[in-house]
Amino acid sequence: MADNALPHVLVIGGGFGGLWATRALASAPVRVTLVDRTNHHLFQPLLYQVAMAGLSSPDIAAPLRHILRRQHNVVVRMDVARGIDVEHRRVRFDGGSLDYDYLVVASGARHAYFGHDEWARHAPGLKTLDDALHIRRHMLEAFEAAERAVDPRAQAEWLDFVIIGGGPTGVELAGTLAEIARHTLPREFRHSDPRRSKIHLVEAGPRVLASMPPSLSDRARRQLERLGVSVHLGKPVTAIDERGVDLGDERIDARTVLWAAGVAASPLGAQLGGDRDRAGRVRVAEDLSLPAHPEVFVVGDLAAVAQDGKPVPGVAPAAKQMGAHAAAMIRERIAGGATRAFHYRDYGNLATIGRMAAVVDLGRLRFSGALAWFFWLWAHVFFLIGFRNRLVVMAEWIWSYVTYQRHARIIIGRRDES
Amino acid sequence: MADNALPHVLVIGGGFGGLWATRALASAPVRVTLVDRTNHHLFQPLLYQVAMAGLSSPDIAAPLRHILRRQHNVVVRMDVARGIDVEHRRVRFDGGSLDYDYLVVASGARHAYFGHDEWARHAPGLKTLDDALHIRRHMLEAFEAAERAVDPRAQAEWLDFVIIGGGPTGVELAGTLAEIARHTLPREFRHSDPRRSKIHLVEAGPRVLASMPPSLSDRARRQLERLGVSVHLGKPVTAIDERGVDLGDERIDARTVLWAAGVAASPLGAQLGGDRDRAGRVRVAEDLSLPAHPEVFVVGDLAAVAQDGKPVPGVAPAAKQMGAHAAAMIRERIAGGATRAFHYRDYGNLATIGRMAAVVDLGRLRFSGALAWFFWLWAHVFFLIGFRNRLVVMAEWIWSYVTYQRHARIIIGRRDES
Repeated sequence: MADNALPHVLVIGGGFGGLWATRALASAPVRVTLVDRTNHHLFQPLLYQVAMAGLSSPDIAAPLRHILRRQHNVVVRMDVARGIDVEHRRVRFDGGSLDYDYLVVASGARHAYFGHDEWARHAPGLKTLDDALHIRRHMLEAFEAAERAVDPRAQAEWLDFVIIGGGPTGVELAGTLAEIARHTLPREFRHSDPRRSKIHLVEAGPRVLASMPPSLSDRARRQLERLGVSVHLGKPVTAIDERGVDLGDERIDARTVLWAAGVAASPLGAQLGGDRDRAGRVRVAEDLSLPAHPEVFVVGDLAAVAQDGKPVPGVAPAAKQMGAHAAAMIRERIAGGATRAFHYRDYGNLATIGRMAAVVDLGRLRFSGALAWFFWLWAHVFFLIGFRNRLVVMAEWIWSYVTYQRHARIIIGRRDES
Repeated sequence: MADNALPHVLVIGGGFGGLWATRALASAPVRVTLVDRTNHHLFQPLLYQVAMAGLSSPDIAAPLRHILRRQHNVVVRMDVARGIDVEHRRVRFDGGSLDYDYLVVASGARHAYFGHDEWARHAPGLKTLDDALHIRRHMLEAFEAAERAVDPRAQAEWLDFVIIGGGPTGVELAGTLAEIARHTLPREFRHSDPRRSKIHLVEAGPRVLASMPPSLSDRARRQLERLGVSVHLGKPVTAIDERGVDLGDERIDARTVLWAAGVAASPLGAQLGGDRDRAGRVRVAEDLSLPAHPEVFVVGDLAAVAQDGKPVPGVAPAAKQMGAHAAAMIRERIAGGATRAFHYRDYGNLATIGRMAAVVDLGRLRFSGALAWFFWLWAHVFFLIGFRNRLVVMAEWIWSYVTYQRHARIIIGRRDES
């Protein structure tokens, strides 16, 4: 147990931002409490693989207290933060309140429906493991319903899928769904033909992967189309119901609609009293602290940080760097030193599309296709937390690559629940 | 697609009985429809490992249509049977009705509370993957709640566990829970000490593993006690609430109570119009058909079959043998031959208790301890369906054996759901 006289650092959120902040405080003269509403750290970049039945939940998640078991200045607590009182330096949780000397808020973002919360019922989003299992169930049950359907039109509606949002998650979901429909399932159905599935990717803006250079967006679109995905660009969604979506005058009938179009910052940001941007992100000072409360740091997807006039993107490397920076600044403050501005080091941008299809942007070096896919695979498996997971995930990918199979095609729970 | 003029065999249930019946009809001149409410075959003997966070769901489950993809005379359908009309040879499902020429009912059993359905809320049972994930969540959240608890008595209640029922499932759960509390978790908690967990195994009868010879029951009890389990024999449960259980005058306080005490046959048995035993199992003729309807066969846990004056036990080998026998009798009938009596070949009985602890009864040869445990491990991994699962499960067990870790310690869903 840590010395109670030491300053108490409270970290909210066990994602990349919060976990990296906690780890960077390992040898600091502080007590740390890391609180998350779940019991695990999630490797979010591979979450779509759980949704698409390629990986199991434990392949991409590890208990936070297991990851931190040897860091003796940390207490891990599974609890839900309900209120932050920056004046009295206290956070209220479901299971009681905790006082802090320094606070790191890393509670991230959720998917958001831009004021259309009623769409949530028909178009589930993907941010947590529960979301992923929910989408997996919808996807697998749609193929089962198609097999049972007697009417050809009803069958077609069950076989068709709409993915809304052409960012990395939407592109990953569309490409993987196309692969499942064309390669994984066909021989296993007798009354329906999964190869007749239509996979629609709908994007309001003019191109997919808008954070990439236009040339790579274009290559990504072409790779998607080669995999069998219909890409609809410049088409904002105007309505969603249980039978399909409206894009203005155009209608796409499909029983399964997935949402990958937008995120909103965690509501905890609103309790910090500072300035926020349109997506609810907290505008922080250069050193990532709150201007009015230098003992409070905001990191990861919840923080609005600009660099060279551009916002720092909501990606895992940025969250890790912010977490480590906040930890360093807390050490600096305790030592009586001055804090420094955060500087984001951008090592590049990559997105996967499907089997042997990806795009990679390393600044001067840009490439796509099979080489990009292997680069993406290596980078993601390399960064997976925990030695065992890395081996298992690698083995599972080699297996599914050779056989086209996806081992996690198990429907858990019922459609009408959750 | 199969020839529509061929006789139609409808199989209800994709467990050991139904799946083995279906496979044994591979080269028969029939069309087969296999219907299950889930999309997977479950390797039930390892289900407790999913509940105890040692294995993931896909490790012990495989999609039925994947298993049967090369058997072209089978249609797999995910649907729920609601009514059987033996007079008109028709079964009503949620998704429509199907007529049959031969019917194999293999819908198994559920856990049952002996008229105390109100106990279900406080003492979840273990029969499906959903049950296993529910128990996993309860178990992991209890340790999290203990870590948050301020009051020592509340903490003790969260650390204590009661398992009701001293059959194979109860013994497996108790032994594994003791291992988790003593070996897997201790270094990861700061405010609570999982080693102070008390694991109570409560059995109404005079011994655990009642289907084993008394000498092995006694050895199993001693092995459980060595692992740290308190075994309560001859103690029927009289009440269960959210804070613990009553055993007559005795009270055990515990926030987590698991039910492994009894099963009842599937309610579909009641629709067959025949005679049933006290647990709702259908009394079948010697050849496993219904006396009044020789075209209807009942196999697996739903069938009440006696041999040499003793009931055939509700275990996987018996269900597989019954399924294969029913299929052979259908072929015999179609060929115009006479049916034969089912004969159960009992190859022995084994039960695992925990790390290096098991009991094996092969008739003349009986043994327990480490050797029995390796024998059990070999037998179970060998029988796991699907080559990949076998390798992955083996690797996972070697890993958790060496490290004492359990990789699936991921809480999914919320306690107040399901």
